[in-house]
Amino acid sequence: MINIDRLRARMTEMAKIGATPNGGVTRLALSEEDKRARKLFVKWMEEVGLDTRVDDFGNIYGKLHGLERGLPVVMAGSHLDTVPKGGNFDGVLGVLGALEAVESLIEQGVKPLRSIELVSFTNEEGARFTPQMLGSGAVTGQFTKDYVYTREDNKGFLFKDELEAIDFKGEESNRPREVSAFIELHIEQGPMLEIEQKSVGIVEGIAGFSWMQVEVAGQSDHSGSTPMSMRNDSLVKAAAIIQKISLWAENRDEQTVATVGNITTSPGIINAVPGETKFTIDFRHPNREELYKGMEEIKQLIKTEVEESSLSSTVKEIRTHQPVHFSNEICTLMEGTCRSLSHPYKHLISGAGHDAMYMQHITNAGMLFVPSINGKSHCEEENTEWEDIECGIVTLFHVLNKLANQ
Amino acid sequence: MINIDRLRARMTEMAKIGATPNGGVTRLALSEEDKRARKLFVKWMEEVGLDTRVDDFGNIYGKLHGLERGLPVVMAGSHLDTVPKGGNFDGVLGVLGALEAVESLIEQGVKPLRSIELVSFTNEEGARFTPQMLGSGAVTGQFTKDYVYTREDNKGFLFKDELEAIDFKGEESNRPREVSAFIELHIEQGPMLEIEQKSVGIVEGIAGFSWMQVEVAGQSDHSGSTPMSMRNDSLVKAAAIIQKISLWAENRDEQTVATVGNITTSPGIINAVPGETKFTIDFRHPNREELYKGMEEIKQLIKTEVEESSLSSTVKEIRTHQPVHFSNEICTLMEGTCRSLSHPYKHLISGAGHDAMYMQHITNAGMLFVPSINGKSHCEEENTEWEDIECGIVTLFHVLNKLANQ
Ligand SMILES: NC(=O)NCCC(=O)O
Ligand SMILES: NC(=O)NCCC(=O)O
Repeated sequence: MINIDRLRARMTEMAKIGATPNGGVTRLALSEEDKRARKLFVKWMEEVGLDTRVDDFGNIYGKLHGLERGLPVVMAGSHLDTVPKGGNFDGVLGVLGALEAVESLIEQGVKPLRSIELVSFTNEEGARFTPQMLGSGAVTGQFTKDYVYTREDNKGFLFKDELEAIDFKGEESNRPREVSAFIELHIEQGPMLEIEQKSVGIVEGIAGFSWMQVEVAGQSDHSGSTPMSMRNDSLVKAAAIIQKISLWAENRDEQTVATVGNITTSPGIINAVPGETKFTIDFRHPNREELYKGMEEIKQLIKTEVEESSLSSTVKEIRTHQPVHFSNEICTLMEGTCRSLSHPYKHLISGAGHDAMYMQHITNAGMLFVPSINGKSHCEEENTEWEDIECGIVTLFHVLNKLANQ
Repeated sequence: MINIDRLRARMTEMAKIGATPNGGVTRLALSEEDKRARKLFVKWMEEVGLDTRVDDFGNIYGKLHGLERGLPVVMAGSHLDTVPKGGNFDGVLGVLGALEAVESLIEQGVKPLRSIELVSFTNEEGARFTPQMLGSGAVTGQFTKDYVYTREDNKGFLFKDELEAIDFKGEESNRPREVSAFIELHIEQGPMLEIEQKSVGIVEGIAGFSWMQVEVAGQSDHSGSTPMSMRNDSLVKAAAIIQKISLWAENRDEQTVATVGNITTSPGIINAVPGETKFTIDFRHPNREELYKGMEEIKQLIKTEVEESSLSSTVKEIRTHQPVHFSNEICTLMEGTCRSLSHPYKHLISGAGHDAMYMQHITNAGMLFVPSINGKSHCEEENTEWEDIECGIVTLFHVLNKLANQ
């Protein structure tokens, strides 16, 4: 049905762009590497005969025209950006896998009723510009253009300037219009499919998330001449909070995850008691009520910890989004397809956010997962068996074909 | 005896170089601000009639020639660099205070037997290039030239290149030769003088220190899709260690101080479990045996904490130096001077390192402290009463006069 060797060759070529010494890849959004990856993707789509365009957020599209040009289109894709020292599958597999499915359709002489559009969304990871999924969020009304354009990376570079610098600022008129369905294939990034030995995951929804920035303020002092008893060390306090958040998440329920991924101290030198410590919290839960309850519990935990001291703290929400449930219709279609192909499959909920989460706001969205070896992702060890990938892309091929002809 | 208004005016002018919005100063070693501060200091020394020179580490000297040019010289000074968002007294007071003392000697027609040399040492703080006190360490045989020249700041800039860039790379032949005594006046940077309402501290010695770099290695993973139970979070482990180190220091003895001032995670993004966490430890103790025992205790504490887990850790020593005892003779001279001037004084041990610590290796060194309001230093609130400063500089004036004539 599909040409797995061709997909594998493209994945290998793409993996060279931003390759790290240990077999991973660093391809931050709107970086020089991202630019090269985008150009290669556009070149491949044009070779396949797709009609390419770029919108004002740098999202890239490639259209296979359907027989009925007036009908809402079927869309499929994911993202090309990665986290620092990320893996070779997160995002890119969904983009190049969709390209493979469409190229196979063309080769097999299929002429779909509806147009099929490939898409690669900008800054899905949120690793360079927070929050994550800026490109898909922008075209689905989650963020204003001004908000997106003024996002700053940690070096002070603005989204808009960087988008222009890599020459991928396209036209507002190129954003998606009427979309009848959106399908995203992605690696699971967790252990469930592997544990249950399933090749395909049918994703019923995505956990809600809350991203927060915490600042603990104490007193900067000399590390050599300030007795321990006279200190208000913001890092020691932050360390207590980080431990408590981790314990809290471990003991709350199996679906709660909370992570402190980034931390900085000020003045940040070896011989000063840190006056200020800032850190991030990424908290997720698949249940809406538990998400909002958990956010309050975290804030309370921080408050309680700081209250007992002469330090102070602030918690700023960067971005919160409630859990999303995908289209039942699409899940059913995916399940039927897996059955008829005898692919071992499993229904699950994604802990990770995806562009499909925002696309669900404007259309019927659905996701297919393939297993992650040892559940690893956002690291260089990220990997997936090629037999599983083949099952996933063949499923995608059939699902797109059906959606484009109904 | 001295002109406190002139000193105050110079301190005010110097404080403008690198001034921060909240009344502090950021003047990192070998920065553009350091260059301007150095030039101003050289200009002032030349106006006073001193013979200036710069050595191959950027240490700056200004000589008041004595009647007997062949005799070992008396030296006084400190440093002009600061920590980020530091205060207006740390270092610069010892430099400009010594200039004031020497200018007053000249004005009063004193012709000392020995030459008196002012000095401002390079990179005392260790805030830009670790370890601290590179300039004084280099000229006292603590570090090789190659070691100093290849020190890197956190942006990858080399000491040597930066020294050349600010045009302060002088001649090796300009290093100090025979020195009969070295005196450094400094702010206490701790609370003791203020608590006991003394204007002058006679410093008997400096605590030993050990600077270490710790790395905790776990496993980077996706923050949304990795269950809490499957994580090896290096930051959660580091947080436990940081808390334990702080508790250990609090409970060990009153003289133990241990500080974690800097911490970074990798990949360092909001949505990845930190695979690696690096942090610094600054541990000090005035007793030699306790210093080395404490270092082992810290290493053991880290080992024990990590042993229970599937994470690993390494501890690298950046620099360790045993406690230093200053010259009894100089302490006695200082005490006699304070008594005859009726300055309230107190003997103490410095928790902070100072250039005098290394100068003690090549001559008889001694230090005078003036109180720090609320014990604050390495922060923008750093402050000292001008009456106390006057007591300190008048003491310095007499001590230098006596040392230069014996
Ligand atoms: N799937 C994925 O890695 N998305 C990045 C944004 C997130 O962490 O939810
Ligand atoms: N006095 C002072 O702040 N020195 C910096 C080096 C050290 O921390 O010991």
